[in-house]
Amino acid sequence: MSKILRVNMNDLSHKWESVPSEHAHLAGRAFTTHYVNSEVDPMCHPLRAHNKVVISPGLLAGTLAPSSGRLSVGAKSPLTGGIKEANAGGLTATRLAKIGLRGIVIEGAPSGDDWYSILLGKDSCEILKTNDYAGIGLYDLIGKIWKKYDSKPGIIGCGIAGQRLLRGAGIFGNNIENSDPGRYAGRGGLGAVLGSKRIVTIISDDSEGSRPEPKQKEKFEQGRKALVEALNKHPVTGKLNNDEGKPFGGLKNYGTNILQNILNEAGGLPTLGFSSGRFKDAAKISGEAVHDLVDRTKKKFGDKSEGRYAHSCHPGCIMACSNAVPYEETGKLHVSPLEYESAWALGANLGVGKLYDVAELNRLCNDLGLDTIEAGNTIAMFMEGGIIPYGDGTAAIKLLKKAYDSKSVDGKLVCSGTKIAGETLGVTRIPVVKGQALPAYDPRPIRGIGVTYATTTMGADHTAGYTIAAEILGIKGEVTDPRKMEKADLSRAFQATTAYIDSSGYCLFIAFCILDDDSGFAGMKDTFDGFIGHEYDVTEYGLKVLKNEREFNRNAGFTKEDDRLPEFFHTEPLPPHNVTFDVSDEELDKVFEGM
Amino acid sequence: MSKILRVNMNDLSHKWESVPSEHAHLAGRAFTTHYVNSEVDPMCHPLRAHNKVVISPGLLAGTLAPSSGRLSVGAKSPLTGGIKEANAGGLTATRLAKIGLRGIVIEGAPSGDDWYSILLGKDSCEILKTNDYAGIGLYDLIGKIWKKYDSKPGIIGCGIAGQRLLRGAGIFGNNIENSDPGRYAGRGGLGAVLGSKRIVTIISDDSEGSRPEPKQKEKFEQGRKALVEALNKHPVTGKLNNDEGKPFGGLKNYGTNILQNILNEAGGLPTLGFSSGRFKDAAKISGEAVHDLVDRTKKKFGDKSEGRYAHSCHPGCIMACSNAVPYEETGKLHVSPLEYESAWALGANLGVGKLYDVAELNRLCNDLGLDTIEAGNTIAMFMEGGIIPYGDGTAAIKLLKKAYDSKSVDGKLVCSGTKIAGETLGVTRIPVVKGQALPAYDPRPIRGIGVTYATTTMGADHTAGYTIAAEILGIKGEVTDPRKMEKADLSRAFQATTAYIDSSGYCLFIAFCILDDDSGFAGMKDTFDGFIGHEYDVTEYGLKVLKNEREFNRNAGFTKEDDRLPEFFHTEPLPPHNVTFDVSDEELDKVFEGM
Repeated sequence: MSKILRVNMNDLSHKWESVPSEHAHLAGRAFTTHYVNSEVDPMCHPLRAHNKVVISPGLLAGTLAPSSGRLSVGAKSPLTGGIKEANAGGLTATRLAKIGLRGIVIEGAPSGDDWYSILLGKDSCEILKTNDYAGIGLYDLIGKIWKKYDSKPGIIGCGIAGQRLLRGAGIFGNNIENSDPGRYAGRGGLGAVLGSKRIVTIISDDSEGSRPEPKQKEKFEQGRKALVEALNKHPVTGKLNNDEGKPFGGLKNYGTNILQNILNEAGGLPTLGFSSGRFKDAAKISGEAVHDLVDRTKKKFGDKSEGRYAHSCHPGCIMACSNAVPYEETGKLHVSPLEYESAWALGANLGVGKLYDVAELNRLCNDLGLDTIEAGNTIAMFMEGGIIPYGDGTAAIKLLKKAYDSKSVDGKLVCSGTKIAGETLGVTRIPVVKGQALPAYDPRPIRGIGVTYATTTMGADHTAGYTIAAEILGIKGEVTDPRKMEKADLSRAFQATTAYIDSSGYCLFIAFCILDDDSGFAGMKDTFDGFIGHEYDVTEYGLKVLKNEREFNRNAGFTKEDDRLPEFFHTEPLPPHNVTFDVSDEELDKVFEGM
Repeated sequence: MSKILRVNMNDLSHKWESVPSEHAHLAGRAFTTHYVNSEVDPMCHPLRAHNKVVISPGLLAGTLAPSSGRLSVGAKSPLTGGIKEANAGGLTATRLAKIGLRGIVIEGAPSGDDWYSILLGKDSCEILKTNDYAGIGLYDLIGKIWKKYDSKPGIIGCGIAGQRLLRGAGIFGNNIENSDPGRYAGRGGLGAVLGSKRIVTIISDDSEGSRPEPKQKEKFEQGRKALVEALNKHPVTGKLNNDEGKPFGGLKNYGTNILQNILNEAGGLPTLGFSSGRFKDAAKISGEAVHDLVDRTKKKFGDKSEGRYAHSCHPGCIMACSNAVPYEETGKLHVSPLEYESAWALGANLGVGKLYDVAELNRLCNDLGLDTIEAGNTIAMFMEGGIIPYGDGTAAIKLLKKAYDSKSVDGKLVCSGTKIAGETLGVTRIPVVKGQALPAYDPRPIRGIGVTYATTTMGADHTAGYTIAAEILGIKGEVTDPRKMEKADLSRAFQATTAYIDSSGYCLFIAFCILDDDSGFAGMKDTFDGFIGHEYDVTEYGLKVLKNEREFNRNAGFTKEDDRLPEFFHTEPLPPHNVTFDVSDEELDKVFEGM
């Protein structure tokens, strides 16, 4: 039977609660959203004692359902001022599920200057004083923990940025096969919320745990098989081999960064601080370029090259899209993964076309505990504001390194998010919604994603309703015209389905296959329903989560005026197609009309 | 007949408009608020072409009514995101009134990197390219203009901070007797809005103008006499002499900084970043200390000392409360004025108890074009965030000087306002409402002013509804208990009357006398009504202005959740009286219920 752990950082106490039967279906995002909306004062200061950090493995984490080990973290966001759910792969969701934890609610904040870690096992919770974990880079920190505990624990936490309460801070998780901080519940500044509780890490050991059992085993197993099959045969997520016997699936070969050239081709790759839709050096930082680099180092160093086309980001993921970038000279691991959105944020968006620089910036973000999307956009503000030049990767690296120095104002600003940095530096082209920076898809030529950016409860976020799947990649062989302006229905459908998937523990990338393949969709639903022993309508379930989130935001003072893109998207045409974002406010308000 | 000047910075054109008869009663704040609310898109970016700067002399500016030469500036605020009116003394209101200008509406923004000035005379407007006016300190700039034009023109504009679009920037005006930038329409970042229009100065010459004539001369004259008499006999504003023949009025002897010791005594002087209500060195930076310094230098240097107990901040002001602080060693002018709120922000609030340091910080703010209240609170964030130590005036001066360097991130941050600086530096005790920093009265022991801070359309602002007059100084000999929590009616009454006064051109300090003395009140009203030739109810007129402002804010997305003080005022008791701000949300919402 699943339990909830409640940690009170005011007095360093904890208690166990059983999951109320009416909440048995809540997991992942549905769980974090429910607890944040029910228990957190929407008007509280996000970085003081009244905020809470809520953590929950997706419903199917730890089971044999494929690619279902995502972890959700929720809180009031210090970046947006609204509710936030961020999720990631890594080990922790699986570990928590196997020790029977449906969720963790962390409340209060200790007085004093000590730093703490929470050590979790089957029926055990210790709150340890770990001052030696604070103030150091995350590669060192995870290496230290990885050595200390031989159970390959799940590790999540916050880095230097979060410990200093800076709003660009994400919550890191460790990669599953090494001690790298490569898995990020990155967005919304949740690392700073954890930092405000003075928690550096949460370490989970499932060696005495067991696999969660579905209520309806047959249904679950039937769904699992269907979904595995659908994922494996899909060209984006699949494991098909090509003529040379190499893996053919787009994600497996090139990772998410296969999108760099595709978006560039579409004229929707935000370049030089959202001033163009095409980057001359896109190919150099693309998934294909990483693939070539891996090929070169493999040839040179053989098995000693630590570059890889792909590996799983969490146990049981069969899509395995996470790449690993080696150093050209040594073949040693430089950074893993280098996702599309990170390579875009730290590359095209800055006019930086050297793969090494982009990988190094990403490694620094991982080490400092920063969301790469927010950090890349923030560095762009330093460029737009004339502090360092566009295109200068070396200057960007130097700037980011200042963040290690606790007295450097530059260093703090570069960790503080795009809005704050842009405003400080006199920039008026600041790409944020609800205070959160836009990701790697310009909304001017691709309107549906703009509708998602504007209307999601989360602040600008592609993962909240990834209409790119329909507008660029196509569903069932058909592409929805990205210029079309009637996108309220499309965005709502994606947002609702996403809220369901974010609760299930499934990786959002199953969407490619469930949208194209009815048996994939049925597989997803059967595993979910089979596990819980009850039928849920996907859209209805998702909309309920969104409704909860909108309620929180409304009580925090959000109105429809917050569901808008910045002015410049309406007034500055984006080359090369020279289009603006022309979706009407009425269309935007249609997305959640009455909700 | 009064006119309106409309300047279009897109193409550097201008045109004259007559004042529509239905708007004949609009002047000062009523004028700026009306035009901002009617013409500015509440959702526009405050520092891009769609915002407008609206300037208007108060209704009675240029007339013989006493102390009636205040100038209002309005726009959408880049600091609060809402509507803003800031007003100041100086020469410009009188100059504009005498050349027959009821208001100026500046719209658009030029492309290119040039800087402009607007030169105004009777029926003339030139838009000059003045690149040599930009990027320099305001003492130098005004000195330059003062030399060039021998008509003693009114000069307003923005300094380096505004030119760089930084949100702590105010709109300066020149003092009336020298070339100092001592008059500030300081709050809300309006200097940055002017900077975004690429306007450095607006220079007005009334040598061919004439005094505006009241419609009902007798009524006006009767009111004028009554108000002059009431002001002159009031102990705060009066010109009574004491036994030694020295001026006795509190303001004339000590300036507004007479309040430093009074608020300290009341335990309501925010100290060390709003962590205490009492400052051990308050006396050293008080109005009395400035008075002593002036005495000492007069003794030493005679007429060569440029320190003065008081002078008028605008032509025809008989309250004459503006002081002038000399250098101890030379008797030369250091800064003028040193208002209470500035001495508090740059003194007690920082734990800085050296009068020289406080005066120097104020001089730097004046030179850079910064609002002192916002700047002082911002420096406090650097102290609270551990970048420089509390109490270190030398470090604060060094920090502020970095603002001259266009590449200094520290320098930009210190000009960017309290909220941005606090968030960047990981501070969670940030004293702002609607993004604007709190002034010199802690709302925990003095609840009415807290109600004003929370509910005014302006962001935290003591001048929006100065309940201190009732809660600390007393009206008609009676003090309203500052701890009382039912302050909605008190705050609303003050806010409405203030909106009327801010429209009249009268200095807010007439409030001391009009509240205490019915003939003073009648005098105010008779001059207003006599000038316009129509009877207006003071409260009704004021509430209409406030209603307009609330409409703008509502359309910009503001809700009652914006009418709140920061969390820490509710949770951290303020020494020495150890009280929190306990006014209920319901009481706050009562202030403008239904509006």
